[in-house]
Amino acid sequence: MDIQSSAQAAVPGGVDRAVLGAVSQGWGGLDPEQFRIYGKQVIDWIADYLANAERYPVLSPLNPGDVKRQLPAGPPQTPESMDAILADFDRVILPGITHWNHPGFFAYFAISGSAPGILGELLSAALNVNGMLWRTSPAATELEDVVMDWLRQMIGLSPVFEGVITDTASVSTLIAIAAAREALDRRVREDGLAGRADLPRLRLYCSEQAHSSVEKAGIVLGSGQAGVRKIPVDDEFRMRPDLLAAAVDEDRRVGWLPFCVVATVGTTSTTSIDPVPAIADLCGRERIWLHVDGAYGGMAAIVPEMRHVLDGCDRADSIVVNPHKWLFTPIDCSAFYTRHVDTLKRAFSLVPEYLRSADGDVKNYMDYGIQLGRRFRALKLWFVIRSYGVEGLAAHLREHCRVAREFAGWIDADPSFERLAPVPLSAVCFRYHPQGVDDEAELERLNSRLLDAVNATGRVFLSHTKLNGKYTVRLAIGNVGTMEKHVAQAWDVLKGLAVR
Amino acid sequence: MDIQSSAQAAVPGGVDRAVLGAVSQGWGGLDPEQFRIYGKQVIDWIADYLANAERYPVLSPLNPGDVKRQLPAGPPQTPESMDAILADFDRVILPGITHWNHPGFFAYFAISGSAPGILGELLSAALNVNGMLWRTSPAATELEDVVMDWLRQMIGLSPVFEGVITDTASVSTLIAIAAAREALDRRVREDGLAGRADLPRLRLYCSEQAHSSVEKAGIVLGSGQAGVRKIPVDDEFRMRPDLLAAAVDEDRRVGWLPFCVVATVGTTSTTSIDPVPAIADLCGRERIWLHVDGAYGGMAAIVPEMRHVLDGCDRADSIVVNPHKWLFTPIDCSAFYTRHVDTLKRAFSLVPEYLRSADGDVKNYMDYGIQLGRRFRALKLWFVIRSYGVEGLAAHLREHCRVAREFAGWIDADPSFERLAPVPLSAVCFRYHPQGVDDEAELERLNSRLLDAVNATGRVFLSHTKLNGKYTVRLAIGNVGTMEKHVAQAWDVLKGLAVR
Repeated sequence: MDIQSSAQAAVPGGVDRAVLGAVSQGWGGLDPEQFRIYGKQVIDWIADYLANAERYPVLSPLNPGDVKRQLPAGPPQTPESMDAILADFDRVILPGITHWNHPGFFAYFAISGSAPGILGELLSAALNVNGMLWRTSPAATELEDVVMDWLRQMIGLSPVFEGVITDTASVSTLIAIAAAREALDRRVREDGLAGRADLPRLRLYCSEQAHSSVEKAGIVLGSGQAGVRKIPVDDEFRMRPDLLAAAVDEDRRVGWLPFCVVATVGTTSTTSIDPVPAIADLCGRERIWLHVDGAYGGMAAIVPEMRHVLDGCDRADSIVVNPHKWLFTPIDCSAFYTRHVDTLKRAFSLVPEYLRSADGDVKNYMDYGIQLGRRFRALKLWFVIRSYGVEGLAAHLREHCRVAREFAGWIDADPSFERLAPVPLSAVCFRYHPQGVDDEAELERLNSRLLDAVNATGRVFLSHTKLNGKYTVRLAIGNVGTMEKHVAQAWDVLKGLAVR
Repeated sequence: MDIQSSAQAAVPGGVDRAVLGAVSQGWGGLDPEQFRIYGKQVIDWIADYLANAERYPVLSPLNPGDVKRQLPAGPPQTPESMDAILADFDRVILPGITHWNHPGFFAYFAISGSAPGILGELLSAALNVNGMLWRTSPAATELEDVVMDWLRQMIGLSPVFEGVITDTASVSTLIAIAAAREALDRRVREDGLAGRADLPRLRLYCSEQAHSSVEKAGIVLGSGQAGVRKIPVDDEFRMRPDLLAAAVDEDRRVGWLPFCVVATVGTTSTTSIDPVPAIADLCGRERIWLHVDGAYGGMAAIVPEMRHVLDGCDRADSIVVNPHKWLFTPIDCSAFYTRHVDTLKRAFSLVPEYLRSADGDVKNYMDYGIQLGRRFRALKLWFVIRSYGVEGLAAHLREHCRVAREFAGWIDADPSFERLAPVPLSAVCFRYHPQGVDDEAELERLNSRLLDAVNATGRVFLSHTKLNGKYTVRLAIGNVGTMEKHVAQAWDVLKGLAVR
């Protein structure tokens, strides 16, 4: 950080200030010295906040409309002071925040950022580059290239995979399936899907436990919900490859064109891991694109003794893992890998004249997906990997899984609770099941009430799912600050509030 | 900002530290006090950087591979210090940055962030909420609701429009076209496009000057490139509504189903404004969804005397304007509006059990688009609008347009230069055209060489396009720091380097 301070230099003089009114260019209602003061105040606030996230109720206790009614119905015509803005942040916004940073956040997948990631994001916001072309910031493209290769090595994926950062797994999965479609070489890019006698209906497969983004991708891509066939799972919630094979056979017989299978490593409800080796065998035999959704679970492969979670994935055609999910990188940052970059680019590259460049053989990441505008997301991921080191990251993931097994043990040992799924990673599915109550509707009522009561304490936040029709409470460990004591507290809260 | 500092409280004790190795939870290789120190150092760096962006070459002078070869081929196993990371940022990353903050950035659309927007983004990164559901942070949803309504008022759009923030205009346009498809009520969501005798091929229309994201959306959605019909433009690069009407007629006759027109307010090459009122007439008559791509140009409507740029848009079905493009909000932030939110939700809503909530009649923005994961983007936009005020923002946009007209006047007055398009907004299309040279290939060679020479100075960065086959240099004003003097400097550089 070697720029000398001469901040006053860029403050516009009297003439420009008169033209532009009360604001000064990029500073808005601030000036450079005020930016320093408020910026440091915000940094102090963040340091305190991160150190004390437990002081807040994890789930916001507000009611619908509580935030909105405190905000003016229209925008201010003239500049407001940063004092006023930050005061409103404290007074109006903060009470309406559900604190994903709280170590008692156990809902959904408990994503969390980290201090190094925040600094990386801050610098990205300041540089504000759009990494659409190599030339629009060579460092954005090349750092993305490098850091994606680092992450590839960290999860033990073959060097034949090349990566690109997208915003979310929803988009990564969408571009994977679009690439799978392009790999058919059936002129879908050129001629589309409709009104073609030469093109059978396309079928995409995933398990019943796959993430909703797979079905949504099918809808977007014009395959429709009917074009997404959900394969039943075994008693550990893993896709059944025998039923997948039967489905593909049956579909081919009646005229569907199977083109893509999405296997999941770490499903949303139970973190089950589909049998990727067997699925890869089938996909290889049937010449079907295999995409692996490892958005959450794939990260576990960073832990050496857990590398097996990605067994078979080297034979996949594409895979997604999300640094913003379980690698302490601020949202959003999704890592998409494919061994068929040319196919991906064939699916997406469109270079109008105004984006042509003569930079030679360089990567222009705009060719790799839907969005032309691309934030410099590699920077925060670089900060995170360097500041933690691979061992530091692995230590957190290992600890999360260990604590999840501890919690599962407590559930198993308590006759009033029942575990409803295996615990291959860091989430536990269970329910309150007092002896003598066997009516499913009653159990749902008890557990739904328990979940509401637990979340209303503000000390923990858990979510639910349904497994084989059973209302299921989930405790998902992924917050970077979560330690065994927080999980023990959750267990105390659950036991204390579980009543018939 | 009222949290008391007790930062040490959350530093894990000896046992946890031993378990987790050399890193401490959310702090990575830092501790809370170090985060304060480095955070403030970064804030100081940003203040200096923004005040002195002109000191850097605007277009990075590096060659392909220059950044990559300075980075280790693999990730560090153990934590690295923030000193080392920030030093590498300075030494390796910064030279590879093309400075979008430089007031001499005139390429593409010259987007820029601003100091208040950076502070908003910093707080978003710290809170790290995923605003997928109302309950996952009520304030994220309600502030988005409010600030999108503020922006709607600012551009003078009817209150029948409801907004949602997406990442980019590429995605906003994609969801608009998906909603248009859903509005057909032809079961595309359920049954898809392929293999259906009951469904004609779908046709989407835009002008020859429309952004590439329209065609890309057609590809993604399965309409194919053939399903995107590009309508010729008039001599001011505006879509010809008579030819649009003829195309729709012709298509209907031969069995296409016209379902969407994308009109552009501020095309990428020339910032031309399609005649939306006439196009809206046609779309109303033909019952075709009208989407307006005002990603750049729509923002001009914030200037009271320029509100006419959105004439007719109140009759559109959807519209996108991008705060990250010409409203000084750090990338990414795209504002999508539609009068048919129910249709949008019908196109996209999928609520698996694990995302169900009993919060009643609340907005869950995950239902409004492709991505489940959603950053808290409203916060930075709120900071920007409040810190500038509507008048401050309007003053910048007005000044950009005024300076563009100045520059156009200089071009017009110089017999060696030729203007190639009208200047309705803040970009100027022109070429060097010395007297006596009329061979197009020669003119392209001269101008391409001129562009390279100009960009190699590091003082300005311009891009090019082609208009009617003519190689065209573009000067686009949109950087928040750009004043007349910077444009005058660009003109000096251009004149000085224009040689036969």
